Amino acid sequence: ARCQNLAREDPNLFFRQLFDRESCTYTYLLADPKTRDAVLIDPVLECLDRDLEMIDEYGLVLKYAMNTHCHADHITSTGMMKTKLDGFCSVLSATYEGAKADVKVKHGDCIYFGDRFVEVRATPGHTGGCLTFVLDDHSMAFTGDALLIRGCGRTDFQSGDAALLYKSVWGQIFSLPAHCRLYPGHDYKGRQVTTVWEERLHNTRLIKGEDEFVNIMKNLNLPKPARIDVAVPANMKCGVQDDE
Amino acid sequence: ARCQNLAREDPNLFFRQLFDRESCTYTYLLADPKTRDAVLIDPVLECLDRDLEMIDEYGLVLKYAMNTHCHADHITSTGMMKTKLDGFCSVLSATYEGAKADVKVKHGDCIYFGDRFVEVRATPGHTGGCLTFVLDDHSMAFTGDALLIRGCGRTDFQSGDAALLYKSVWGQIFSLPAHCRLYPGHDYKGRQVTTVWEERLHNTRLIKGEDEFVNIMKNLNLPKPARIDVAVPANMKCGVQDDE
Ligand SMILES: [Fe+2]
Ligand SMILES: [Fe+2]
Repeated sequence: ARCQNLAREDPNLFFRQLFDRESCTYTYLLADPKTRDAVLIDPVLECLDRDLEMIDEYGLVLKYAMNTHCHADHITSTGMMKTKLDGFCSVLSATYEGAKADVKVKHGDCIYFGDRFVEVRATPGHTGGCLTFVLDDHSMAFTGDALLIRGCGRTDFQSGDAALLYKSVWGQIFSLPAHCRLYPGHDYKGRQVTTVWEERLHNTRLIKGEDEFVNIMKNLNLPKPARIDVAVPANMKCGVQDDE
Repeated sequence: ARCQNLAREDPNLFFRQLFDRESCTYTYLLADPKTRDAVLIDPVLECLDRDLEMIDEYGLVLKYAMNTHCHADHITSTGMMKTKLDGFCSVLSATYEGAKADVKVKHGDCIYFGDRFVEVRATPGHTGGCLTFVLDDHSMAFTGDALLIRGCGRTDFQSGDAALLYKSVWGQIFSLPAHCRLYPGHDYKGRQVTTVWEERLHNTRLIKGEDEFVNIMKNLNLPKPARIDVAVPANMKCGVQDDE
């Protein structure tokens, strides 16, 4: 084995958070330190070489590369990764019609890596097929763009629905234990992690009532995401673009 | 109290890593979760509001704002912070001649926050006054630019000395426990943390012999840091620039 015993860093979970400076996207690498089975959440096409190098250097066996949702601001690397690494499955929500992925998951499904798993929770609202991945012991959750640190993803395209997002966050994320660490899909201010208690206290949008939240989201007047016309169709096919 | 019991997240240490996208600088916030006494390592002027907001939201009492070294690529916020927050001391190495800071530290000093402390280790080579801060239990170290992930800081200005850097890294950092987490001053590829074992295995520069390392560092041919003429004199005075 090229690597030291990963279990000595933390006997229960090997974990790394990675950042794409261009799109401010976070990618997450989780592994069972004993079996070295791993999952990768929201990998970015431009960071493919970095991510493959880490998997190699840590001696991990990638089982699943999964997207929290069909992204509008960057292209996923899961399709291109399949041309460079064998033995893993791409994962996307079964909700998106016409989407291609090896495994299409729905609310309540579990995704296993070694002796650990993440639970799939449907948290629609930013897009219709947004998922939150909750670690088996409820110590961590990966919220994609459903919940961002002190904010949330926009709700004005891709079947976005502010009232639905509000219900998703309160029902599926804020109901987790107060000290569950929440890892977002993006952060634009260099913050990396939050917790349920922090967001229930300081998320100025989501601690409002539902009607006020819907109103705030209706009046954001954000510009159209620069890459949406390329990124969304590509991400429906794991980031592999049509040549047609 | 505005905040939940921070000890429930981790009873021994409250920890956040923050990133400045512009200069790719990492800032670190550490606190004793019981007393809420905190230290801030390498805060960036442009991120001052964000950092003050976090200290406030977490209900922390800042004791020390410290710089691993006199930075050439960004301006520290420790001086400006003193105009906005009371009761903390700025910290810098005693090595820099003419530098101003409330506390000038040297190798072997300890900086206390609540029941915890960091130990100051002199790790010169990138600059003459570079420090590494090692957490009391040797589970974490903050290496500034002495050691970067799979790399190290340049050694061609500010009393830089490649042979000295090599001795600093091997003597003071690579001698820490294999699973000690190393937190760098920067990363340009979106990575956040490494460990002693990883760098002893995969740091292609530093695992070479000393002569080869010195030769590599001599031939990097890097451009002069864009902000060095402004940043270095300012950082000698905690980031407060002269008006003269
Ligand atoms: Fe998104
Ligand atoms: Fe530096």
